[in-house]
Amino acid sequence: MATGELNDEFQNLKTNPDKKENIVTPCEVEEEDTVTPWEVEAASGKGVDYEKLIVRFGCQRIDEDLIRRFEKLTGKKPHHFLRRNIFFSHREMDQMLDLYEQKKPFYLYTGRGPSSEAMHMGHLVPFIFTKWLQETFDVPLVIQVTDDEKFLWKDISIEDMQKITFENIKDIISLGFDLDRTFIFTDFTYIGQCSDFYKLIVQIQKHVTFNQAKGIFGFNESNNIGMIGFPAIQAAPSFSSAFPHIFNKRDDLPCLIPCAIDQDPYFRMTRDVAPKLKLIKPALLHSVFFPALQGAQSKMSASDPNSSIFLTDKAEVIKEKIKKHAFSGGRETAEEHRAKGGNCDIDVSYQYLTFFLDDDEKLEQIKQGYTTGALLTKHLKKELIIVLQKIVGEIQKRRETVTDELVHKFMTPRKLKYDY
Amino acid sequence: MATGELNDEFQNLKTNPDKKENIVTPCEVEEEDTVTPWEVEAASGKGVDYEKLIVRFGCQRIDEDLIRRFEKLTGKKPHHFLRRNIFFSHREMDQMLDLYEQKKPFYLYTGRGPSSEAMHMGHLVPFIFTKWLQETFDVPLVIQVTDDEKFLWKDISIEDMQKITFENIKDIISLGFDLDRTFIFTDFTYIGQCSDFYKLIVQIQKHVTFNQAKGIFGFNESNNIGMIGFPAIQAAPSFSSAFPHIFNKRDDLPCLIPCAIDQDPYFRMTRDVAPKLKLIKPALLHSVFFPALQGAQSKMSASDPNSSIFLTDKAEVIKEKIKKHAFSGGRETAEEHRAKGGNCDIDVSYQYLTFFLDDDEKLEQIKQGYTTGALLTKHLKKELIIVLQKIVGEIQKRRETVTDELVHKFMTPRKLKYDY
Repeated sequence: MATGELNDEFQNLKTNPDKKENIVTPCEVEEEDTVTPWEVEAASGKGVDYEKLIVRFGCQRIDEDLIRRFEKLTGKKPHHFLRRNIFFSHREMDQMLDLYEQKKPFYLYTGRGPSSEAMHMGHLVPFIFTKWLQETFDVPLVIQVTDDEKFLWKDISIEDMQKITFENIKDIISLGFDLDRTFIFTDFTYIGQCSDFYKLIVQIQKHVTFNQAKGIFGFNESNNIGMIGFPAIQAAPSFSSAFPHIFNKRDDLPCLIPCAIDQDPYFRMTRDVAPKLKLIKPALLHSVFFPALQGAQSKMSASDPNSSIFLTDKAEVIKEKIKKHAFSGGRETAEEHRAKGGNCDIDVSYQYLTFFLDDDEKLEQIKQGYTTGALLTKHLKKELIIVLQKIVGEIQKRRETVTDELVHKFMTPRKLKYDY
Repeated sequence: MATGELNDEFQNLKTNPDKKENIVTPCEVEEEDTVTPWEVEAASGKGVDYEKLIVRFGCQRIDEDLIRRFEKLTGKKPHHFLRRNIFFSHREMDQMLDLYEQKKPFYLYTGRGPSSEAMHMGHLVPFIFTKWLQETFDVPLVIQVTDDEKFLWKDISIEDMQKITFENIKDIISLGFDLDRTFIFTDFTYIGQCSDFYKLIVQIQKHVTFNQAKGIFGFNESNNIGMIGFPAIQAAPSFSSAFPHIFNKRDDLPCLIPCAIDQDPYFRMTRDVAPKLKLIKPALLHSVFFPALQGAQSKMSASDPNSSIFLTDKAEVIKEKIKKHAFSGGRETAEEHRAKGGNCDIDVSYQYLTFFLDDDEKLEQIKQGYTTGALLTKHLKKELIIVLQKIVGEIQKRRETVTDELVHKFMTPRKLKYDY
């Protein structure tokens, strides 16, 4: 499972999902955003057009009604990722709320493609939200770390892959997940531990032809045969039979998957296959992409440490990176800025604050101040530095307590605190 | 792993291996035998042309020199499968004899695709020979039962597949394999037991493109994505790192694979990939195909019980099947037969005797007698009935002692009697 940031790594695949749905005559041709699990590229400088994506992918907008129902049922203020449309789209989330209302069980599944040794702020988005969902609904969570995927796509040894994976899992645990409610696994390890998981993968593979996989993922004949089979491995955790130790071999527990919208192709495929296996289609919650420090149009890259804030960055580094590299929506001069105001839509400090500053009122004040020109970019940067230093500092502090032993505990196939 | 009999089951794939090597201009077109893991079809009524196959596949004939060296090194009379060219082709068997001469370790690997509940005489060929090799060389043996392959190719549930698989393993054990020297595994079970095995599979998959797999196996875009990845699963046991419990995590122990020639595409691929993984290419011994009771041109089919003798056939059934169905190389009338003689090349009773009658002298007498017309088809049938009733009877007797517990012992990943 990749991470939803814009082009965070070297890509082999140039893909075009849903090709068939987009047959247009030449005069109608319009540049289209490329959004696949391995590549995200906006056709316009304004970034990805999420409204168009919803139509193209056939998912639903998370509207005010749904958010209000969230609040009503849980009695909890909806997470600011919901309030601010950072999670903007869904598939059958309404049905998951029905289940919650009826006190019926379901579970959460999210994941990570371990692509670089240190995770960055963009990688945190699905995890922060999933953690909030887990605490809100009190349900089991499975986290898949797709070390096999990254090994198949990258020029890296299995040994190096395993080191990165281990560090990434420590990062994930540092976000504060509850051991009694969470199972974290890597494919290389878990497939060798659970034959039910492998059986499920093969059952899914049996129902997807190369042609179908090509249509969904843009595979071509130069892809290796591991890549071609991989989508079934990311699909499998969507079904409770993948975790017999947690769900007591039940295969009828519905699954809710929070992820960035680029991961949707995997689950469109999964939802196509589910009825053929007499299993339940997973529900989804989709997030937007996290912008690079240099702006939504530039690429976030693990090989460019200045393209984001990493969990390993010290307070001073965070400060310097934001000061030096955060793309500004301000005017040429302070005078012009005060006169005409700045542009929040492109200012990265403001964007990052929408992701990481929970206080709605304060965010609104900043927006007003910046738009009217009362606040300069340096004020927004200062605010962002404080917010990120706090979040990253807390994670770093927690990470010091994450022992190898604790990692192994999270990764041990076991019953969680729930009875089925 | 399929079994080398002619078309023993329903096939989805119409394949043409080595396409690239066979580009010919229309005037040169010559019908070619189709030999792939899923389909064997002779272009001519005379059956598969094995000499041409050796050239096409790029393997070596097992010649008199090699057989003599076998005898000299082991001090044992070569098995009649060798003496009679039933195992007729090889890859680097000479190097395995070098190893044996130098008292260096290697291991044996063979397999079975569990396609029908009862195994038939054709299925026994690789196992009988592998058992003889194991006893001759005193080396470990791994037997892969590819339940995942058959599930991917057939319209069958995993549960039914597992029942067939269990029965097949009982059949294999009934041939008399030594528990201390033999590990039998199914993919569905073992992949869930050994993450090193899965890691190796993914490493192999990484080095085979869809294009390459298409060229070797004739895949097309309608094949499911499990089929496309499967060749790596049959390749993996060729490397000792697939069995860390047996080989103490060593990856440098050479492997010798006895199998029917239709399985060679898997191991051509394996031998291509081996150097890229810095692993040792497996050596091979190839057998001819086992003919259907109705003759080499007809298809042996699990759905037609009369097409072969099954291990479940009672003595009386064996007798009846041979009497009624064994294709005769005799003349129209007994008189004509006595005058002109019969044809051993097409007489199935004679063919079966070459597979199952160890006594060279007796076989030669039968050949002479039949060819000259002194022996009628019914004499050959009578001889074959005695031979097969004895072999099948012994296996059935041994099978009664094969408990479920013994099956589980053979299938438990463990150290064998060898130290590495």
